[in-house]
Amino acid sequence: MNKMDKVKTSEDYVKALKKLKPNVITDKLLTKPYENEDIIKGMNVVSTCYNYAKDPEYSELMTADSSLSGNRVNRYNYIPRTKDDLRKRIKMVHALARETICAQRCVGGDALWALYIGTFQLDKSNKGKTNYHKRLKKYLEYVQDNDIAPAGAVTDAKGDRSISPADQEDKDTYVHIVKKTDDGIYVSGIKTPITMSIYAEELIVMPSMQLSENDKSCAVSFAIQADAEGIERYALGPEIKTLEGEHAPTHGRKYLNKEGMIIFNNVFVPNERIFQCEEHRYGAIYANLFATLHRFSYLACKPALYDIMTGAAMLISDFNGTKGEYFLSNTAEKIFQIAKPAILSRGMAKAAIEESTITESGAILPDEVFTNMGKYMATDNFPNAVSVLQDMSGSLPVNLPYEGVLKDKKYNEKVEKLFKRKKGITPEQHYKLNEFIRVLVASSEGGLLQFGSKHGGGNKEAEKVAIYGNNLRHMFQCKKLVKEIVFNSN
Amino acid sequence: MNKMDKVKTSEDYVKALKKLKPNVITDKLLTKPYENEDIIKGMNVVSTCYNYAKDPEYSELMTADSSLSGNRVNRYNYIPRTKDDLRKRIKMVHALARETICAQRCVGGDALWALYIGTFQLDKSNKGKTNYHKRLKKYLEYVQDNDIAPAGAVTDAKGDRSISPADQEDKDTYVHIVKKTDDGIYVSGIKTPITMSIYAEELIVMPSMQLSENDKSCAVSFAIQADAEGIERYALGPEIKTLEGEHAPTHGRKYLNKEGMIIFNNVFVPNERIFQCEEHRYGAIYANLFATLHRFSYLACKPALYDIMTGAAMLISDFNGTKGEYFLSNTAEKIFQIAKPAILSRGMAKAAIEESTITESGAILPDEVFTNMGKYMATDNFPNAVSVLQDMSGSLPVNLPYEGVLKDKKYNEKVEKLFKRKKGITPEQHYKLNEFIRVLVASSEGGLLQFGSKHGGGNKEAEKVAIYGNNLRHMFQCKKLVKEIVFNSN
Amino acid sequence: MNKMDKVKTSEDYVKALKKLKPNVITDKLLTKPYENEDIIKGMNVVSTCYNYAKDPEYSELMTADSSLSGNRVNRYNYIPRTKDDLRKRIKMVHALARETICAQRCVGGDALWALYIGTFQLDKSNKGKTNYHKRLKKYLEYVQDNDIAPAGAVTDAKGDRSISPADQEDKDTYVHIVKKTDDGIYVSGIKTPITMSIYAEELIVMPSMQLSENDKSCAVSFAIQADAEGIERYALGPEIKTLEGEHAPTHGRKYLNKEGMIIFNNVFVPNERIFQCEEHRYGAIYANLFATLHRFSYLACKPALYDIMTGAAMLISDFNGTKGEYFLSNTAEKIFQIAKPAILSRGMAKAAIEESTITESGAILPDEVFTNMGKYMATDNFPNAVSVLQDMSGSLPVNLPYEGVLKDKKYNEKVEKLFKRKKGITPEQHYKLNEFIRVLVASSEGGLLQFGSKHGGGNKEAEKVAIYGNNLRHMFQCKKLVKEIVFNSN
Amino acid sequence: MNKMDKVKTSEDYVKALKKLKPNVITDKLLTKPYENEDIIKGMNVVSTCYNYAKDPEYSELMTADSSLSGNRVNRYNYIPRTKDDLRKRIKMVHALARETICAQRCVGGDALWALYIGTFQLDKSNKGKTNYHKRLKKYLEYVQDNDIAPAGAVTDAKGDRSISPADQEDKDTYVHIVKKTDDGIYVSGIKTPITMSIYAEELIVMPSMQLSENDKSCAVSFAIQADAEGIERYALGPEIKTLEGEHAPTHGRKYLNKEGMIIFNNVFVPNERIFQCEEHRYGAIYANLFATLHRFSYLACKPALYDIMTGAAMLISDFNGTKGEYFLSNTAEKIFQIAKPAILSRGMAKAAIEESTITESGAILPDEVFTNMGKYMATDNFPNAVSVLQDMSGSLPVNLPYEGVLKDKKYNEKVEKLFKRKKGITPEQHYKLNEFIRVLVASSEGGLLQFGSKHGGGNKEAEKVAIYGNNLRHMFQCKKLVKEIVFNSN
Repeated sequence: MNKMDKVKTSEDYVKALKKLKPNVITDKLLTKPYENEDIIKGMNVVSTCYNYAKDPEYSELMTADSSLSGNRVNRYNYIPRTKDDLRKRIKMVHALARETICAQRCVGGDALWALYIGTFQLDKSNKGKTNYHKRLKKYLEYVQDNDIAPAGAVTDAKGDRSISPADQEDKDTYVHIVKKTDDGIYVSGIKTPITMSIYAEELIVMPSMQLSENDKSCAVSFAIQADAEGIERYALGPEIKTLEGEHAPTHGRKYLNKEGMIIFNNVFVPNERIFQCEEHRYGAIYANLFATLHRFSYLACKPALYDIMTGAAMLISDFNGTKGEYFLSNTAEKIFQIAKPAILSRGMAKAAIEESTITESGAILPDEVFTNMGKYMATDNFPNAVSVLQDMSGSLPVNLPYEGVLKDKKYNEKVEKLFKRKKGITPEQHYKLNEFIRVLVASSEGGLLQFGSKHGGGNKEAEKVAIYGNNLRHMFQCKKLVKEIVFNSN
Repeated sequence: MNKMDKVKTSEDYVKALKKLKPNVITDKLLTKPYENEDIIKGMNVVSTCYNYAKDPEYSELMTADSSLSGNRVNRYNYIPRTKDDLRKRIKMVHALARETICAQRCVGGDALWALYIGTFQLDKSNKGKTNYHKRLKKYLEYVQDNDIAPAGAVTDAKGDRSISPADQEDKDTYVHIVKKTDDGIYVSGIKTPITMSIYAEELIVMPSMQLSENDKSCAVSFAIQADAEGIERYALGPEIKTLEGEHAPTHGRKYLNKEGMIIFNNVFVPNERIFQCEEHRYGAIYANLFATLHRFSYLACKPALYDIMTGAAMLISDFNGTKGEYFLSNTAEKIFQIAKPAILSRGMAKAAIEESTITESGAILPDEVFTNMGKYMATDNFPNAVSVLQDMSGSLPVNLPYEGVLKDKKYNEKVEKLFKRKKGITPEQHYKLNEFIRVLVASSEGGLLQFGSKHGGGNKEAEKVAIYGNNLRHMFQCKKLVKEIVFNSN
Repeated sequence: MNKMDKVKTSEDYVKALKKLKPNVITDKLLTKPYENEDIIKGMNVVSTCYNYAKDPEYSELMTADSSLSGNRVNRYNYIPRTKDDLRKRIKMVHALARETICAQRCVGGDALWALYIGTFQLDKSNKGKTNYHKRLKKYLEYVQDNDIAPAGAVTDAKGDRSISPADQEDKDTYVHIVKKTDDGIYVSGIKTPITMSIYAEELIVMPSMQLSENDKSCAVSFAIQADAEGIERYALGPEIKTLEGEHAPTHGRKYLNKEGMIIFNNVFVPNERIFQCEEHRYGAIYANLFATLHRFSYLACKPALYDIMTGAAMLISDFNGTKGEYFLSNTAEKIFQIAKPAILSRGMAKAAIEESTITESGAILPDEVFTNMGKYMATDNFPNAVSVLQDMSGSLPVNLPYEGVLKDKKYNEKVEKLFKRKKGITPEQHYKLNEFIRVLVASSEGGLLQFGSKHGGGNKEAEKVAIYGNNLRHMFQCKKLVKEIVFNSN
Repeated sequence: MNKMDKVKTSEDYVKALKKLKPNVITDKLLTKPYENEDIIKGMNVVSTCYNYAKDPEYSELMTADSSLSGNRVNRYNYIPRTKDDLRKRIKMVHALARETICAQRCVGGDALWALYIGTFQLDKSNKGKTNYHKRLKKYLEYVQDNDIAPAGAVTDAKGDRSISPADQEDKDTYVHIVKKTDDGIYVSGIKTPITMSIYAEELIVMPSMQLSENDKSCAVSFAIQADAEGIERYALGPEIKTLEGEHAPTHGRKYLNKEGMIIFNNVFVPNERIFQCEEHRYGAIYANLFATLHRFSYLACKPALYDIMTGAAMLISDFNGTKGEYFLSNTAEKIFQIAKPAILSRGMAKAAIEESTITESGAILPDEVFTNMGKYMATDNFPNAVSVLQDMSGSLPVNLPYEGVLKDKKYNEKVEKLFKRKKGITPEQHYKLNEFIRVLVASSEGGLLQFGSKHGGGNKEAEKVAIYGNNLRHMFQCKKLVKEIVFNSN
């Protein structure tokens, strides 16, 4: 087998996007979607994955030898098989998150990983009557060799939350099979909000939840090119256009997470790209596999975000000279509160790796309890960390003068007095740091982050349920232990 | 005494502003500041105080008979003298806050109130050598009879937080007396961030903190017209221009808190408008009086904000039908967490009124411990309330499609599927509620609210210090009690 | 009407107890129950109510003029009619709690108060066919004039919590009517745990919960002498005998809350002492009235307990000289956390009084929302306050040498080195303070306090339900407000 | 090398104790200390370590091959060298803690481990002029071969906390060198509270804190037989005698942690047993090594305690049938809160092992940040876990009838009604479980646990300091990262 380097450049990625048939809609169909300012900021994030793979400092970390072809491929398209693979994946995601806060590509990568494990199980459960795993491997090789960054589309529109998919007034609230033919299936329905979906070449679709027999048409998983006939992709979220000043931070000005809604209108999927078809019991299995693996990714990016907040807290404290300002407060205590969840989620990642298991497919699976607990702690501590950083910053982040006056001779000398603190720090540095903090914790961009931190990968309650469920066996042993201690004591 | 109605219209207020000499700067000097979109949103908030005073439903509450002239004046310019006055003030601020979230006028009104009490004390401490209280009363009458909405300017730029005003490299980081003449004083320095300052006719200036003998030039309080020679007013905060859609909420689209920085460049203040001049020990006394009274105002507006969040939580829960979605979660518990601080701060207001004292000036003063505790609980619970509302809303608030597609026949039918939930709720209602929540808890406008909630009226730590200080006498009695219980027990 | 003083001495109280037919059981029937060491500690607490009524410093507070007879009676047997009565009741309970931590008599007093209001409502609902209120007033006058300290018996044994009283396998898990005759009723069943029940002359029985038509035999309220035919009273809780040293604190050594279980075995109750008989809808009404009034009492005693903990924290901090020992810790912050709930529950009491209403019976009723919130905050903060005090005390409270060695010449000089800290504090004082703290937060006596603090007057969840229920009308207004803001905005 | 089994029986351990010269004092010198009821309960705990080593189920785990002699020795006396050793140590401590809650032997074992690492460093720092490490190894072999369970004596009496050892009025508040001779040293001073000290054959002494040059006489570490001339050992803590009923739990009735105070009165230590002598800079190094290693042990026992509490919570919830009793409460949520810290500290142990380092001595050292964070989370969550268990149990644990009535025909039938709940559970089982919970969370024994959980191995603040200190390098990198992001962004 001739080992080849399949790693492409970010320019290739953008070029590939531009070849797609236009189907991205903001408030109208965009004929040139990849020239929209906000969408470009999203593409910039994905480009980072390509750039890092070409960067000598990161290329080793960002790429791996495919277990299928032996070719050198982007690590996001590589299925982890060993504890060391898990460690590297954590490092990779962490490195990207330091740059972009959310690397966005995890969703698609984790979907591939989940399907790799899940299709094997499903085939086995089907007693070999299906060959989903083989299809998935073939598709994976295609993705690897073309160095595609696919989006993972899991969450459905869901409709009325209190009733099941089958009982929805409008079936399109879930992606479902409309028709089956010899060559494939036709699907309709809505997946939203889907990270990276409006600037991806390929979409990987999976069920988002437990499904009953009645819901079997929703038990469907497949891959599809993003511009396939019948697909519409809607840009979501508020327009972010204000961050254009020189002092605006990279995040927001250059990078943005621009989510999308995908509407499938009777879209044809050929057999070789179908990875589940009506096996309703695998709705939950696929969804849970994805949730675990995606939350594992969070154990890499959340520490990076907390690291950034820790650094910002230390820096603003330096700038403001507020150490010990109030006798009832304490800067060290405050910084500890921000740094704590980074340590916890980092540690949980290590524990999850230590207790990981090799699945029958050959792919490795991190421990569910530690993975979910790590994500839970990262999520649970976030509002407090945001609040502490807001506390430490005083009111300046939201009360900066307009950037222009700093450059206007008529005003700047006077306005600069506002930034007088410890010596050696320029007004521009003050301005930039405060604006950075504002964008992080008091802006529309920051609002996306906060919601993403809560609901991405399922919310806190979903993680509790996962911890509870996976820990139940242990908890019953605890109960048994207490019975012995209390009733059979001597 | 002929009782006259001195209540003017919001049109009069705007007209008065437009007569002022232009001195408002964004990134340049605005020749027509009151046509700036963001500033107009701020003026809209202040106009509400005028409109309510003319509204039959609220006029009784919004106005009062001046104890000086007997004339009917806006209640914000009326100094409370009885428990009933306190109750009415709470009701007034609450009513306005339901409409505007932050009524903004409290700062100026509370400054007048604080000076009313403080000048009396200061004159007494000066053994009658000064007549600040008389001056203040005369000024107050002027403000009352011309129905002016003055801004209160308390917080200084502060420079290096670790050293005192006198030791600052640049003296202008605090407002201070530059020169004294027979007719008055000349002052320089910076007050920032000052609520309402860029759309007020008058500015009332007070020291922001404890001052030593060396800092006596900063011990200065006065009133001045907003366009006096030497004053520059800078607009602060991010530009908010994106909320223009039909579905955008009133808050953000119509109303905004646009803070300002006031730079005094050797500004002359005539004697009759000076209320403190170098009495450094009254730096803390004035500042603390203002802080207590202003935090008392928060006991009216914060419950309104929590009420709005409570209502939003109940409504989104209805819309989403999420009641009981997760077995480990609980909608009622979540709503309780949002509603709780409203009850606590409301109750603390009542306790503060019950335990209020009449000062020698005749003005009433709410109890410091209960007032500060009420504000502390309102502030301390805010990050959690925000977080809970984010939890309950799911990810839709930050993942709405663009407003335009809802009105485009080509798309709206499909996009509306995103909003399918319980029957009887239109896509527009869904859109509006989710956008309202986004603005409240995940936007730049919401960021201003969060910071305002933290740092307005001093932050949480400052309130702890005030509680601790004012509760100390009681705490020493606790210590004495325990000594008796433990050492003299029989 | 000739006003007479009906206040008796604590000796009279003990004498009255000793006249009762013995029916108190520990692990056997006690022939002289009032010579049992633990029971005497309980009686000592009740005696305090009598002693304070005779003490010139407290007699004014501890007694009141009966609205029935005009006689001077113990305030616990007086039904509050005005806001001032509520304030005095709070002061009285607080004074007693400073001495005894839990005065115990509140339960009986609050039961009388609840029945005073409830019987009036029930008669009215029965359209005058019953005369429960008249009976209650007559019984109240008897209790007042004989200065009896009755126990209030509310909580039933309850059996299987998941099914209703009527469905219980054993009907005796609830007190219920067994037979009705012309002269009265026969009742059986269990009330437990009942404060003060084993050292009270009289028992006042009420339903503990909502009852359906099927449960109507449990809808029964009455008063009965404690030694009536068929009554057995069982002492509950661990035996507390170890606190006999000279350095042991009053609480534990002299005072104790010794709860009891009352078993009714076909006990006859004459008509004139029956206050409810099968009116099942009044199960919840009586129980809720009692709960509100009893939780109101907690707003007096809990601040006293927090005061004691605050004093202990300040004193141990002084003794240990730990101020600022750790750079991440802060003594002031810790003390603030203990003092905070005292301020909150005090303030809520004031708010509850301010918003109280006069019922049709003439008795006053504190506001339910503020009352429950005050109790909720007192309960919710307790584990943290205990924990903080444990933190501040270091490990000495549980690691004291035996008291004997401090008095033994062979050892005391050496052992006293353990207590070397700041000068001026004797080893005995150190010993006593640490032992006091141990009893408060790390002993069987302290365990009773912690459980009492949680479950007395219903637990935290019950208070949440009460807040939620009573605040619902307000919350629906919040929802309506948001609808107006969001959907009808202009 | 002939590998020999050196594991002795618990009978041997007790026999060895009884040979010691009596020097244990309660309120007098005990001539037969090992017949004192409370001390026997402590010895029972230590005996478990011996019994488990002989138990086929645990012997593999409880013993190891000495790296010094190759002999089979108790694992507590074995110095871990590999990650696998760390894993086994965690398992061993966890197994013992399930039985005894606190195995007590960790202190001595961790002291040996700390000295093994520390003496090597100290010799190196002394450039080979000392041979502490060789002495320690020889002593270790002695301890191994005689299967001794030594106590570790670290904490000094400390005197006035605000001044250093050298400045104490009474030097004996710290153990210090009184005199140096050719053969050894004479030491005086107090170590307290010292776990296991009153029922150990040997004492291992170490400094407890950072020491300056002036304090160098306190920089002393050594081993000594427990009955050496001049040693007095005082029993500490409340007398626990009440748990004698049949239904009393093992913990409290059979097992107890009975701490001691050791007073050294000019005690001679021969050279070969001295491991530090005036090297003041190693005060902190030894103390910190011990703290890290001992906190690592907590990562084994605390999960066991939380497991027991989890099991108790599940069982009492079953017994009470309270699932879903209140609409605002949730049994699963409550159990989650108890189970959570077990998962966190377990996971942190795994992370600490994963990131452990091999020291130059050959002994392994777990990662400090993860170790301290694991202990911090275990400690920080304890008050809430206790509180939740108290919530879930209702008031029955502190309101049980006396055990005797359950066996008395006259009463038992009636009293058993108190325990009627779900079928299939006997009154005895109810009684035992409730009494078990009472002892755990509302008793003097439980108070010892709570204080131990807080202050054992240093309190929460000390752990924060350790985390902060060891994480500082990482935090400065975070600061650097933010500088790059904010100031050098492109």
